[in-house]
Amino acid sequence: MTPFFPDVPKIEYGGPKSKNPLEFKWYNPDEVVGDKSMKEQLRFSVVYWHTFCNNLSDPFGVGTALRPWDDGSSSVANAQRRVRVAFEFFEKLGVPFYAFHDRDVAPEGRTIKESHANLDEVVKVLKDEQARTKVKLLWGTANLFSNPRYMHGAATSPNFDVFAFAAAQVKKAMEVTMDLGGAGYTFWGGREGYSTLLNTDMKREMDHLGQFLTMAVNYKKQIGFQGQFYIEPKPREPTKHQYDSDAAACLNFLRTYNLLPHFKLNLETNHATLAGHEMMHEMEVAIGAGALGSIDANTGDPLLGWDTDQFPTSVYLTTQCMLCILNMGGFTTGGVNFDAKVRRESFEPIDLFHAHIGGMDAFARGLKTAQAILGDGRLADFLKSRYESWDAEPGRRVEAGQSSFSDLEAYILPKGDASRNVSGRQEMLENLINEFL
Amino acid sequence: MTPFFPDVPKIEYGGPKSKNPLEFKWYNPDEVVGDKSMKEQLRFSVVYWHTFCNNLSDPFGVGTALRPWDDGSSSVANAQRRVRVAFEFFEKLGVPFYAFHDRDVAPEGRTIKESHANLDEVVKVLKDEQARTKVKLLWGTANLFSNPRYMHGAATSPNFDVFAFAAAQVKKAMEVTMDLGGAGYTFWGGREGYSTLLNTDMKREMDHLGQFLTMAVNYKKQIGFQGQFYIEPKPREPTKHQYDSDAAACLNFLRTYNLLPHFKLNLETNHATLAGHEMMHEMEVAIGAGALGSIDANTGDPLLGWDTDQFPTSVYLTTQCMLCILNMGGFTTGGVNFDAKVRRESFEPIDLFHAHIGGMDAFARGLKTAQAILGDGRLADFLKSRYESWDAEPGRRVEAGQSSFSDLEAYILPKGDASRNVSGRQEMLENLINEFL
Amino acid sequence: MTPFFPDVPKIEYGGPKSKNPLEFKWYNPDEVVGDKSMKEQLRFSVVYWHTFCNNLSDPFGVGTALRPWDDGSSSVANAQRRVRVAFEFFEKLGVPFYAFHDRDVAPEGRTIKESHANLDEVVKVLKDEQARTKVKLLWGTANLFSNPRYMHGAATSPNFDVFAFAAAQVKKAMEVTMDLGGAGYTFWGGREGYSTLLNTDMKREMDHLGQFLTMAVNYKKQIGFQGQFYIEPKPREPTKHQYDSDAAACLNFLRTYNLLPHFKLNLETNHATLAGHEMMHEMEVAIGAGALGSIDANTGDPLLGWDTDQFPTSVYLTTQCMLCILNMGGFTTGGVNFDAKVRRESFEPIDLFHAHIGGMDAFARGLKTAQAILGDGRLADFLKSRYESWDAEPGRRVEAGQSSFSDLEAYILPKGDASRNVSGRQEMLENLINEFL
Amino acid sequence: MTPFFPDVPKIEYGGPKSKNPLEFKWYNPDEVVGDKSMKEQLRFSVVYWHTFCNNLSDPFGVGTALRPWDDGSSSVANAQRRVRVAFEFFEKLGVPFYAFHDRDVAPEGRTIKESHANLDEVVKVLKDEQARTKVKLLWGTANLFSNPRYMHGAATSPNFDVFAFAAAQVKKAMEVTMDLGGAGYTFWGGREGYSTLLNTDMKREMDHLGQFLTMAVNYKKQIGFQGQFYIEPKPREPTKHQYDSDAAACLNFLRTYNLLPHFKLNLETNHATLAGHEMMHEMEVAIGAGALGSIDANTGDPLLGWDTDQFPTSVYLTTQCMLCILNMGGFTTGGVNFDAKVRRESFEPIDLFHAHIGGMDAFARGLKTAQAILGDGRLADFLKSRYESWDAEPGRRVEAGQSSFSDLEAYILPKGDASRNVSGRQEMLENLINEFL
Repeated sequence: MTPFFPDVPKIEYGGPKSKNPLEFKWYNPDEVVGDKSMKEQLRFSVVYWHTFCNNLSDPFGVGTALRPWDDGSSSVANAQRRVRVAFEFFEKLGVPFYAFHDRDVAPEGRTIKESHANLDEVVKVLKDEQARTKVKLLWGTANLFSNPRYMHGAATSPNFDVFAFAAAQVKKAMEVTMDLGGAGYTFWGGREGYSTLLNTDMKREMDHLGQFLTMAVNYKKQIGFQGQFYIEPKPREPTKHQYDSDAAACLNFLRTYNLLPHFKLNLETNHATLAGHEMMHEMEVAIGAGALGSIDANTGDPLLGWDTDQFPTSVYLTTQCMLCILNMGGFTTGGVNFDAKVRRESFEPIDLFHAHIGGMDAFARGLKTAQAILGDGRLADFLKSRYESWDAEPGRRVEAGQSSFSDLEAYILPKGDASRNVSGRQEMLENLINEFL
Repeated sequence: MTPFFPDVPKIEYGGPKSKNPLEFKWYNPDEVVGDKSMKEQLRFSVVYWHTFCNNLSDPFGVGTALRPWDDGSSSVANAQRRVRVAFEFFEKLGVPFYAFHDRDVAPEGRTIKESHANLDEVVKVLKDEQARTKVKLLWGTANLFSNPRYMHGAATSPNFDVFAFAAAQVKKAMEVTMDLGGAGYTFWGGREGYSTLLNTDMKREMDHLGQFLTMAVNYKKQIGFQGQFYIEPKPREPTKHQYDSDAAACLNFLRTYNLLPHFKLNLETNHATLAGHEMMHEMEVAIGAGALGSIDANTGDPLLGWDTDQFPTSVYLTTQCMLCILNMGGFTTGGVNFDAKVRRESFEPIDLFHAHIGGMDAFARGLKTAQAILGDGRLADFLKSRYESWDAEPGRRVEAGQSSFSDLEAYILPKGDASRNVSGRQEMLENLINEFL
Repeated sequence: MTPFFPDVPKIEYGGPKSKNPLEFKWYNPDEVVGDKSMKEQLRFSVVYWHTFCNNLSDPFGVGTALRPWDDGSSSVANAQRRVRVAFEFFEKLGVPFYAFHDRDVAPEGRTIKESHANLDEVVKVLKDEQARTKVKLLWGTANLFSNPRYMHGAATSPNFDVFAFAAAQVKKAMEVTMDLGGAGYTFWGGREGYSTLLNTDMKREMDHLGQFLTMAVNYKKQIGFQGQFYIEPKPREPTKHQYDSDAAACLNFLRTYNLLPHFKLNLETNHATLAGHEMMHEMEVAIGAGALGSIDANTGDPLLGWDTDQFPTSVYLTTQCMLCILNMGGFTTGGVNFDAKVRRESFEPIDLFHAHIGGMDAFARGLKTAQAILGDGRLADFLKSRYESWDAEPGRRVEAGQSSFSDLEAYILPKGDASRNVSGRQEMLENLINEFL
Repeated sequence: MTPFFPDVPKIEYGGPKSKNPLEFKWYNPDEVVGDKSMKEQLRFSVVYWHTFCNNLSDPFGVGTALRPWDDGSSSVANAQRRVRVAFEFFEKLGVPFYAFHDRDVAPEGRTIKESHANLDEVVKVLKDEQARTKVKLLWGTANLFSNPRYMHGAATSPNFDVFAFAAAQVKKAMEVTMDLGGAGYTFWGGREGYSTLLNTDMKREMDHLGQFLTMAVNYKKQIGFQGQFYIEPKPREPTKHQYDSDAAACLNFLRTYNLLPHFKLNLETNHATLAGHEMMHEMEVAIGAGALGSIDANTGDPLLGWDTDQFPTSVYLTTQCMLCILNMGGFTTGGVNFDAKVRRESFEPIDLFHAHIGGMDAFARGLKTAQAILGDGRLADFLKSRYESWDAEPGRRVEAGQSSFSDLEAYILPKGDASRNVSGRQEMLENLINEFL
């Protein structure tokens, strides 16, 4: 078969001194970092939607993307050819995973039955290509936001039929994901929110969402799907407010509807910062609840107020992410999924390679840097000693839930005041991180 | 006794046509709106800290406030005189409530014992003045953020002694609040958060906070305090990140530590907007969880990124607040508490009156407008009809938890697609609100 | 001819008590406010792009707009029919003006020649309809941002051909605007900026923009176009940074290239707030430079970081706008141009009416309120007295440029310190504004 | 004399492998980078206000700083002792410059005469210490924002006396700066703005500011001060809006009052980002106008909306800054001035060292990285080739101002459309930068 990227070789590790932009400078898949190879630590994944379906339009301009393999039609044949392109891309890049929405891989039909049939036709090719290349599905999902049907929400639509349609669509997407051996299934509630509270019964809508996810959990058991369920927080855009606005909001929702045992979070940097949090904050919130599952690797522009979904290149960001991941013991079902798109001006096919190479290299550096920081031990030692007053009595008794306000008053009254504080040494710690970059 | 505001009369209702800035134009305390008097519906409260203790410094300039009654000392006598000023102010304004932190009303001593003693001396005067004027305490609280002791947190400090000190301080503040017949007690975790995650064990700190509040609940039972406990969310400032960042984060925290039955939320507009939410959003989130207790009435500047704590004058804002409050059946223990301060340039005593009069009038208009909208019924009718597809089968069955993905697929497959949506009519509804202003 | 909005009557003034959403509550075109009729004071204008061309897609979903008159094609015939729809809409609404981009009214062809020809065909119909209805063109403009050609900028493109193409396009758009008797011509540099500074020579690009606008000024003289040239500031979106980011940046640019005598500013609320300014601030900056020309009437969502272009309904906003406009003596060539779009969920044709009626009513109220504030005089008196120390010596001498640091030192040294300040009375003034709403 | 930092040695270059936090890892003052030593390229400066006067209070808490040499009084003797501390600090750090406000170094007196006298007493010690250590003054300035006198502005106060007082204060500060051999003098208009437009005559206030700076220019000539005048932009905080909000606003102001030849800009990262710009953007704007003078080196927190003034540690930021500086040919009178403060929790004296060491190292790395990028040449080559269509006819003719819309139309019409664009390659360029870190 004629390759779709004839001029691009398989991307190899060239090392930090390579000046070839089509070589990795840091990512060396089989190099062992910590107790596992880079490949296993990072579990990179390419997203189908941005990389193969996004035409790079923006609210003020039509698409610019040059995709010579695409005939512009919404035919099944075109969709099937796109699968071949995607897998050639995955192979050349050497990523072990990909992720998709149902509507990315196959066109929507006039009826839901037709949509199901279209999906089945394309899934056959996905299956073939997975078998051929050993590339696996990190997670699948259903697009419940693009079609006008979902303008007022999917599971939270005031229109009951839309809820039912969404249920049927998710049911099929779960089946397909299972069929393809997907390691997970993700829920992103892009339209589950509101545009104005004036026309919204928030409580009733959230109850509907709770029912929807409960049915998903039930159906998962019914069909025996073993993959992990994820919820992906995002604060606003496309609607004025989404219900899953950040990690804490998702956890609160999951606890409210007794769904926490069944879900983990899929966190994204750009969603974190739009919600006013650092990615590391969101990760710590999720880890604290035992609920960090996977990450969508990208970055936003801190000066822009929408989801720019840029490829992550800051080594500070990737080091922080990998510190969290290593500290929690690494990924199980999840991975580093590049939910990122090239800029509208980077419209040529080769830009897709530059973008992914840069992101993979940045995460490889982050992994090595994080591992070096852990190996060095000074950061962890500082943290340990900072809390040491809690490791002895009477702190230990408080942690064990065996203390009272009266006990503590009795302890502190004779002392008059607390013992003196020690500097938090933020600047010294920031310098310490810089030592490892 | 010589009055502290000799030139200011008791503020009376002058009506919308009055041009006297020292008369209410809308707030008419005994006028019945809905089923209660304005006074009972709004339950206005003045905050002690901003109105009587804030010298109007900012990060780039020292205080400007002209407070002729204050001798600038941190003596108990000065603090006691300040109580007289405050109650003269409450009386002239005609507000039924006030709120305070322990350190607002009485100076901190060299030891915690001395601080307790100082507080006792001032509480005597508060008690006298409450009796004399019938003004009541909406809620009390402890200042766990100003003293350098709390630089790294109070209940979340890595220094155990600080935790113990905070416990003793809250214990005393609860006792005093109970002694003064306070209708509630508020926790605002101004320093419960972090400046950098590099030096922070977030999970351990949150566990400590959980223990702290559990002990507070236990002590409340022990002493028989009947007031309502509140948590007040705020996203950032003074620390980079506070754990109680918004309503959802607070609810998630409370659920995690089984504290939800014991707490309600005290919501503030400026805190809501700093967290990226409209006040009405935060109120709906809290109401959905049965946890809206009280509101801190103020406003922020949407273009500034810190807590400007301005007096609320937008009738849009106050109408939204009162729509939520009326819809939930009105306040029980809570009220409209002006956690707001005059601008640094509004440094004369009379500005305190202008500010509160404006805020009270704005809320009175909001109440009347909200009541008129409810009386009119068009908004509620629109909302009801928007969800009517859920009031019949098969929607009702979903709401009852008796449906499955397979049922819904069976329902929608023969239809092919969902029935068509209806416009959300946001513009029409915004126009409708404008009709009532 | 069959009307396109068969169920919508001409919108009449129903008065504040009307409950008919298809009647004006405040806008009464012939009512005199100040020295002119509302119609003349407000000079309302409908924008062609949002109202007749926007399909209400967003970055996460395809268009939802129901526009039964549109066959979805990019034929000239479809474009001509759209003109008839637009003028029926203008007439029913009773607005005296409209505004367009070249590519709104007519489809782009395969060559620039074809595009010119398409435009000519549609302009004939615009001319007919203008004559029939007396609706006039407030301003025309060229769309230099949607086509992929303009991805890297138009006048600031690194590709010279793109600059030349843009010049030819603007030349034609100016001719057409003149032909239609347009009262002005607007430049909005949507792609004149950058996505990253790494690939950008900012100085060289701005020099090109300076040359481009100089050529536009020359061509204006050459053809004798008498309309006003406007520049429209906007800070970011679609590019990371636009050169015309706010009023001050535009003025600085115009001064740099000696273009200030030839341009005024067309200011928009949503652009102002995205740049971190209140609309009133931008208006004052422009007025101070004698350069306020026209306004794009809309509003943003202060919690969202992109151009939501909502219809303005806040009476606070419209009052502030109209205070500025009245203070500068009213519009000459400019007007109140609704650069606003209905929400994606307000997808039915009738929503276009609700939206414009609400915006027009809001501005009519703003006008009446501003006029009442001016008539009352207290606000102006306060301002006058606040600066009165400058109306006498030695302040007057400073204003006349006849003083020196030594003079001022000699004046202040004997006094020791400045005379005491007076409160800025911000709260009292905010209350004063509320009196008039 | 007993040293104030007895445990801190002179900070030496330890190299990247040093694990001693009190050694430089990258800053090696005499190492030549490009054509000059690091010391000459970077011209580091410590600010007096944050490092020696800031007690680390914040709006919610009192000061925490432990400064054992300070007796807490506002005596001249205390101020003089603080000078000795400062110079010991400068020496140990090895920085060649410092910067101050008049009120940092000496206490304000009861009258302006007394303030002048206090300043004179301290300046004597500054002079001695400068002579002893060879540390120089980068720039001086007057604090026109902390005293309540300046609540409504200094040069823009409605109170004429305040304007006169400010003039006398600046006059003295200029004299003192000249006397100390200062290389520059900076104007930061912290209170030159407004809190509300309701009480503000913006045009009149800006005219006053224009007069004020004109008098400063005149007085500079009169006394023969050879230092550079700087204006420092900042968008908001402490007032709602400052007139010098960003580089473009300052340039527009300077052009309006014919002051551009007399001023350069002193740019700060945190001020840039608060204004919605990257630091590199502001630098390019200033460089484009030939007006970049000096930089205040710090960083903000992109998720916080106020001036956090953190020490800069991001190598991305420092590389960008140094790329701009090297491209413009290096500093002349300006330098890298650490307008940064330690966190409130970093309250011990040693934290001042950690903070400055980290900042200096980060800028040293930035310098070396920028130099390496320039030496490599790929980035510059990319930029050159991107604009090459402008280096030939007819582009060159446009740049020379010899073209017209008609010429350009004649050129493009036969082509039909512009020649095709080339990708902007943002991702590839971001990867290229990462190669050098």
